[in-house]
Amino acid sequence: MKVAFQGELGAFSQQAIQQLLGTRAQPVPHQRFDQAFAALKAGKVDSAVIPLENTLAGSVHENYDLLLKYPFTITAETSVRVIHNLIAPPGVTFRSLQTVYSHPVALNQCLDFFAKYPRIQRVPFYDTAGSVKMVMEDRPAGAAAIASELAAKTYNASILKRGIEDDRQNFTRFCLLETEGAKPHAVPGASKRPWKTSLVFSTKNVPGALFRSLSALALRDVNLIKIESRPLRGKPWEYLFYLDLIGRQDDPAVHNALHHLAELADFLRILGSYRSA
Amino acid sequence: MKVAFQGELGAFSQQAIQQLLGTRAQPVPHQRFDQAFAALKAGKVDSAVIPLENTLAGSVHENYDLLLKYPFTITAETSVRVIHNLIAPPGVTFRSLQTVYSHPVALNQCLDFFAKYPRIQRVPFYDTAGSVKMVMEDRPAGAAAIASELAAKTYNASILKRGIEDDRQNFTRFCLLETEGAKPHAVPGASKRPWKTSLVFSTKNVPGALFRSLSALALRDVNLIKIESRPLRGKPWEYLFYLDLIGRQDDPAVHNALHHLAELADFLRILGSYRSA
Repeated sequence: MKVAFQGELGAFSQQAIQQLLGTRAQPVPHQRFDQAFAALKAGKVDSAVIPLENTLAGSVHENYDLLLKYPFTITAETSVRVIHNLIAPPGVTFRSLQTVYSHPVALNQCLDFFAKYPRIQRVPFYDTAGSVKMVMEDRPAGAAAIASELAAKTYNASILKRGIEDDRQNFTRFCLLETEGAKPHAVPGASKRPWKTSLVFSTKNVPGALFRSLSALALRDVNLIKIESRPLRGKPWEYLFYLDLIGRQDDPAVHNALHHLAELADFLRILGSYRSA
Repeated sequence: MKVAFQGELGAFSQQAIQQLLGTRAQPVPHQRFDQAFAALKAGKVDSAVIPLENTLAGSVHENYDLLLKYPFTITAETSVRVIHNLIAPPGVTFRSLQTVYSHPVALNQCLDFFAKYPRIQRVPFYDTAGSVKMVMEDRPAGAAAIASELAAKTYNASILKRGIEDDRQNFTRFCLLETEGAKPHAVPGASKRPWKTSLVFSTKNVPGALFRSLSALALRDVNLIKIESRPLRGKPWEYLFYLDLIGRQDDPAVHNALHHLAELADFLRILGSYRSA
């Protein structure tokens, strides 16, 4: 099974692919998110795995916008703990380190480490996994990289220190996308987790529009776990709402709630039902 | 007036400071957001200006978390159009360019430009404004940077091409923070814009909790313009909601709605009322 993702081999997205589909899935790297979506549309891959939100940085609006533009179904989700490791070619010792390469966001998430070892210079690089590839190929003297454990394995590098990030509450939620109408995908270990349904709808901007829309769920005791509003492009003062609820779209209460919501909303699209991560 | 911000001089945050407070405000750079908050708490600056959301990337959860941790008031907001410019030392021509330095996020937002000029190599750098500073100081041969117009002015560099970003719908919303209880700040040109009030509240995770909370607004025709949920740390299945509404907290309808919401919510904090950007 070919799976499109954004990034270099060894990226956190590839770890998400392994969690969702096992190690036999073949990850297909893309430079940009829209290219990963287009590859699935063109049938060049069987599915795509994309990040939707990070606990520190927030929702990835670009991917929510792309979800609306393409007719795909979310068939599974997973949560990846973002752990930054100090990685070097085998034989390089921690004491010999002079320089550490990584993506600036990763370098910024390890400030306590750099404060503790001021002799080590940090150098921004294009990509976390790509920085491991580079130190393995070019072997600059006293150089290491910061990236995932998977990146270390991918390029046969050694981990000098594990978990050097400042904040351990760093998780990214990824979803598996398949072509329209695909069935929920069974993720190993998730068969007892509650079902989740993701949807997007729009309302006219009249006071109480969201309140009325949510009545469709509340009147049937359907529980909402995420809601986010986003201005509709080109329609000032009208809004899109992205919503996750507990339940499967063919549960009777959820089915009726969605039918009622469709009456109240200008636009409604169900993105998929899947086991929560 | 001293104003804390995160980034280098010439950053988009500094442009937000100018829009909010004019060019006489003195921007005080900080490496991290939490350091900018701490500087305001310690009285080392008079205010802080921080980004809350970007139209492509989404909300900056780190800053929403810091807003909860510190007792500051939002007294104004502004929206900065993120325009990327190709910037070089005076005398360097476009035809002589070989290399362009910038933050990877900025480089990634100019992919069409690099596709059009494949002879130009892109090199990731720590910071957009910092890359202008570097090409001006070190003058590497045939080198330019990608950054804001303000960064070009700050370091006396020339703009070779303006607006080379792929997506023009790239805006960042910044807010002005002052110590607890500060009055709304009058931003030039914003005196006829509608008032906005920002708040954060939590509910128990029972079905319909958000619906009931929103009734406090809907029953009084108070219009909601942004809502976002966020799981409460350490309390599984309980949620925080960040909400922006139209109106000022001392408008009678808003005042009553907030009083009612305080009855329904476990926790409620008003972050401030200010003119919308």
